[in-house]
Amino acid sequence: MARVYNFSAGPAVLPEEVLREASAEMLDYKGTGMSVMEMSHRSKTYQSIIDEAEADIRDLMQIPDYYKVLFLQGGASQQFAMIPMNLMKNGVADYIITGQWAKKAYEEAKKFGKANAIASSADKTYQYIPDCSDLSISTDADYVYICENNTIYGTKFWQLPNTKGKTLVADVSSCFLSEPVDVTKYGLIYGGVQKNIGPAGVTIVIIREDLIADDLPDSVPTMLRYATHAEHGSMYNTPPAYGIYICGKVFKWLKKIGGLKEIQKHNETKAKVLYDFLDRSELFHGTVEKKDRSLMNVPFVTGDKALDAKFIAEAEAAGFVNLKGHRSVGGMRASIYNAMPLEGVEKLVVFMEEFEKKNR
Amino acid sequence: MARVYNFSAGPAVLPEEVLREASAEMLDYKGTGMSVMEMSHRSKTYQSIIDEAEADIRDLMQIPDYYKVLFLQGGASQQFAMIPMNLMKNGVADYIITGQWAKKAYEEAKKFGKANAIASSADKTYQYIPDCSDLSISTDADYVYICENNTIYGTKFWQLPNTKGKTLVADVSSCFLSEPVDVTKYGLIYGGVQKNIGPAGVTIVIIREDLIADDLPDSVPTMLRYATHAEHGSMYNTPPAYGIYICGKVFKWLKKIGGLKEIQKHNETKAKVLYDFLDRSELFHGTVEKKDRSLMNVPFVTGDKALDAKFIAEAEAAGFVNLKGHRSVGGMRASIYNAMPLEGVEKLVVFMEEFEKKNR
Repeated sequence: MARVYNFSAGPAVLPEEVLREASAEMLDYKGTGMSVMEMSHRSKTYQSIIDEAEADIRDLMQIPDYYKVLFLQGGASQQFAMIPMNLMKNGVADYIITGQWAKKAYEEAKKFGKANAIASSADKTYQYIPDCSDLSISTDADYVYICENNTIYGTKFWQLPNTKGKTLVADVSSCFLSEPVDVTKYGLIYGGVQKNIGPAGVTIVIIREDLIADDLPDSVPTMLRYATHAEHGSMYNTPPAYGIYICGKVFKWLKKIGGLKEIQKHNETKAKVLYDFLDRSELFHGTVEKKDRSLMNVPFVTGDKALDAKFIAEAEAAGFVNLKGHRSVGGMRASIYNAMPLEGVEKLVVFMEEFEKKNR
Repeated sequence: MARVYNFSAGPAVLPEEVLREASAEMLDYKGTGMSVMEMSHRSKTYQSIIDEAEADIRDLMQIPDYYKVLFLQGGASQQFAMIPMNLMKNGVADYIITGQWAKKAYEEAKKFGKANAIASSADKTYQYIPDCSDLSISTDADYVYICENNTIYGTKFWQLPNTKGKTLVADVSSCFLSEPVDVTKYGLIYGGVQKNIGPAGVTIVIIREDLIADDLPDSVPTMLRYATHAEHGSMYNTPPAYGIYICGKVFKWLKKIGGLKEIQKHNETKAKVLYDFLDRSELFHGTVEKKDRSLMNVPFVTGDKALDAKFIAEAEAAGFVNLKGHRSVGGMRASIYNAMPLEGVEKLVVFMEEFEKKNR
């Protein structure tokens, strides 16, 4: 069995030891005689799997007691509706548009109230993060919304916006658990797990309890109310049980390697190797303003589409896969999430150096 | 590794060979060098996994071309809202209440229009299926809704209701793929997969194309529109990719053993072994009217709560697990889905016979 270096933007690489454990436990989880896939979600064994997962993410992110941690379904796209449906009291929210996903969230929110685009980086294909230190926040905004790390464009909010006292809501799908975070700065943090945490089909929502409304109109489906899930410990109905079990293993892996401070160092080291090369290369260059560079998603181009295509094909043949950039940016993108080993990035850079020598 | 006989009502037993394959492919799916969990849903490899899964379920159920097959998230509980939100044109629907799940669907539908309970078996704790040959169907009903197999109570519609020309919508979560089905009798068939097909977190919806509305009001979230998923081949956003992969393996297992006619025989044989014993036992008896008995869920009692508890404990110690009945029925319930081997039921009956001898 030869594992590749998988630079997919998501679903994405998972820690090999997590996969080995999952494989070993597939027919018999810890002497229960069954797979976690086959297990009643109401069983004591499963309850302890989800309880441990919650305890471990609380520990990793230092989540205060007055926040709920919810394991949901439907991905970020379903949150695009749930957030305005649950959080809009005044019917107003401010959106900062730093890419396609923030824009989709904004478009969906318009169905449920007045959504304002208060800043945008669309003018330069989202290749930077706008200055958000003094925006025109709506006086009656129920929340200010950001996509904290932009998977497609490779930008990251290194400073959170000044919301002028309004609740901050953040989609962290592509930077979840990649560094320490001060949860108290947010009202709601959420992300699909399929980039940094586990298999697609689980969405984690961390929400401050006072934002969980119990007086929503009938038009909000039971399953789209945070209160439904908060009141039932994410088990109002059958949860995506196997996915949560894998997430739990990734939490334990993160704790074992030293938690979010350690993974941050690891991610900074990896990203530096790649960005340093991009900055000295005469063939490849990054597409993003340096101050806004993501540690997770690194887009780059040669400036020559035919050469980009040649690079992607040769890289794939050499075991560096899923390097093709998003169609809206073109070129290449290396997603180097938590589970990508340093070795994978170092070898990629060696490969890029050799490619450059041959093709300059 | 000792596998138990797992009589869980769901999530439930899966075919052992499916689990063995999944275990073997966990770190490297067919030479790709990655797990299916790590795979971009936009990759050719994953596209062929979902395409094959769809083709196989179409083949198994003989689904006509003018029905869409959708792989969604959120379980039956989310369908309880999606069905009225998408299918109500006149704002009216008729519900047949044969258990807790049909009742929940009915309660949710009331949020979105006029839902009528046109028949119910609540008078006898749902231990039978009402006569549905000549019900008062609403003249303007957009659909008639049933829960075809009632997991908690162990009943099954052996004859579909006479809908007098109205569209039939059926929750088949606990009898999905357990026998041949004439899809054309339904407008919409759906089920969570976690009983007969795969891991919790995937919901399969089979919907006649003319029922997929493209003129819904803004208040229906993008993710709760069948049109969204139908137009994007179930990949509007990242699907529950690993769960769909396991479902696909179960479809292939079903095809290999001979399809739905063969699994029906297998299920009839298993159920007969258990029901025949219940009918001749002087200690145990079934709780359901014989004509309405499910092949999938078999509730039974001794009539003595202490003895029920003793039986459940001793059965568990002997490797027959998850036999405790739902709290609303009490006693025991053996769920004997497709993947439960005949041997499991035969051995359970031997165990019950011995228990009866000792405890009569």
